[in-house]
Amino acid sequence: MIIIGEKINGSIPSVAKAIQERNADHIRHLAEIQTQAGATYIDILSSVPVEIEVETMKWLIETVQEATDLPISIDSPNPETLVECMPFVNKPGLLNSVSGEGNKMDVVFPAIQGTKWNVAALLNGNYGIPKTAADRLKVFDEIMEKAAKFDIAPSRIHVDPLVEMLCTAEDGINMIAEVMETMREKYPTIHITGACSNISFNLPARKIMNQAFIVLSIYKGMDSAILDPTNSDLMGMVYAAEALKGDDEMCINYISAYRDGLFGQKKAK
Amino acid sequence: MIIIGEKINGSIPSVAKAIQERNADHIRHLAEIQTQAGATYIDILSSVPVEIEVETMKWLIETVQEATDLPISIDSPNPETLVECMPFVNKPGLLNSVSGEGNKMDVVFPAIQGTKWNVAALLNGNYGIPKTAADRLKVFDEIMEKAAKFDIAPSRIHVDPLVEMLCTAEDGINMIAEVMETMREKYPTIHITGACSNISFNLPARKIMNQAFIVLSIYKGMDSAILDPTNSDLMGMVYAAEALKGDDEMCINYISAYRDGLFGQKKAK
Repeated sequence: MIIIGEKINGSIPSVAKAIQERNADHIRHLAEIQTQAGATYIDILSSVPVEIEVETMKWLIETVQEATDLPISIDSPNPETLVECMPFVNKPGLLNSVSGEGNKMDVVFPAIQGTKWNVAALLNGNYGIPKTAADRLKVFDEIMEKAAKFDIAPSRIHVDPLVEMLCTAEDGINMIAEVMETMREKYPTIHITGACSNISFNLPARKIMNQAFIVLSIYKGMDSAILDPTNSDLMGMVYAAEALKGDDEMCINYISAYRDGLFGQKKAK
Repeated sequence: MIIIGEKINGSIPSVAKAIQERNADHIRHLAEIQTQAGATYIDILSSVPVEIEVETMKWLIETVQEATDLPISIDSPNPETLVECMPFVNKPGLLNSVSGEGNKMDVVFPAIQGTKWNVAALLNGNYGIPKTAADRLKVFDEIMEKAAKFDIAPSRIHVDPLVEMLCTAEDGINMIAEVMETMREKYPTIHITGACSNISFNLPARKIMNQAFIVLSIYKGMDSAILDPTNSDLMGMVYAAEALKGDDEMCINYISAYRDGLFGQKKAK
């Protein structure tokens, strides 16, 4: 499972404050704890006005790289920002994200052609979030076609089918499950990702709903997720789901992760 | 979801002690807390030698009925005990259980013909637990055929596909998931049950694995479970799974159960 650690997010008030005050200790700490908790990428989202976005991202990226060797997930709604930030990292990471909207793919795909960069792609188009599985899969096909033109292999693409809140759904997760299954079938080497905590928006006991959702998502083909890796119960669910799915023979990864203290109670020494 | 509350189980040392000492307060307490936690049936398993089993069950059943109006799940490996205990209850409940083994069905099915009793049925035969989905489904077909001869409708049968420990599995839960899906397809009105906590035998952080398993089982068709309803995190997973599956439009049951304090933190008044 690919874990995109979500804690360095400028829309979280304490992180916004740290960014404004250039509190490097706080940012480094968030990078360190996510690294220790088993993250694959450290996501960096500044959530500042576009005029100061690149300089802010530069400071954030350099600060994070003082604390961890993990690759960075450069996160911005502006495709130009994603591309301008690429030179700041020590190693290729993830550009988060493009979609079927506007010129995003046209800006980002040429920039990562011939590189080892990965890219996250959301299944929304120019008219918002499609309501049906068929319409999301149409955006998916457009993304995959365009990626192929720039020689971006499916294994470099993390498709986010767009997790929405369950509380207004009439049919549970059936639609998004269909999207995940179809994508996995068409492109076995693709990554399927998502912001799992969206599912529980406006519901009580969000932690419970998030845990249940990630189990089903993994079962349906998700192999990458944007989450807080320091949430050890959620990480436990990830390892349990992989074992239940049959991707962890004899539960060896589950048991090792437990022994490493990534979830559950630490063993008494 | 049908919850068969498992706490009155004589193989648990504290319960065995309460049974031996005829400590009615303890037994009534276990019945009360399971009732408050949302159980559908109160399971009673004495785990005493067969010579004193019926008299022990009689005392247990009468004691439980002083504390709750819920129907009883009479639990014994001896089919004769199940039938002999039927007159002790105030209302028809569940006989737990028959299987494809020996004379179990021949003893129990005639006794519940023409009644409102439900019955649990395990998919093992005379030669232990079948290893393949096909062989378990063969036992299933035998059970359903015999039940039909005694006019026992599928909706009165809780089939337990036999949950086994994951730590020795090579293919995750794929085999048991196939059994559940096939049974659900053949008999849409059947109940599918199971002792979910078997899945985590010999694993660390059993609670995490049990939670992940029940989510997938519900998704695959399980609508009845033998569990501890006072485990509020597990109950939360049950409500979350039903909502994710699409069986709880707008999450109304999930939200009500939370408001009733069945899982998560109680709301501040």
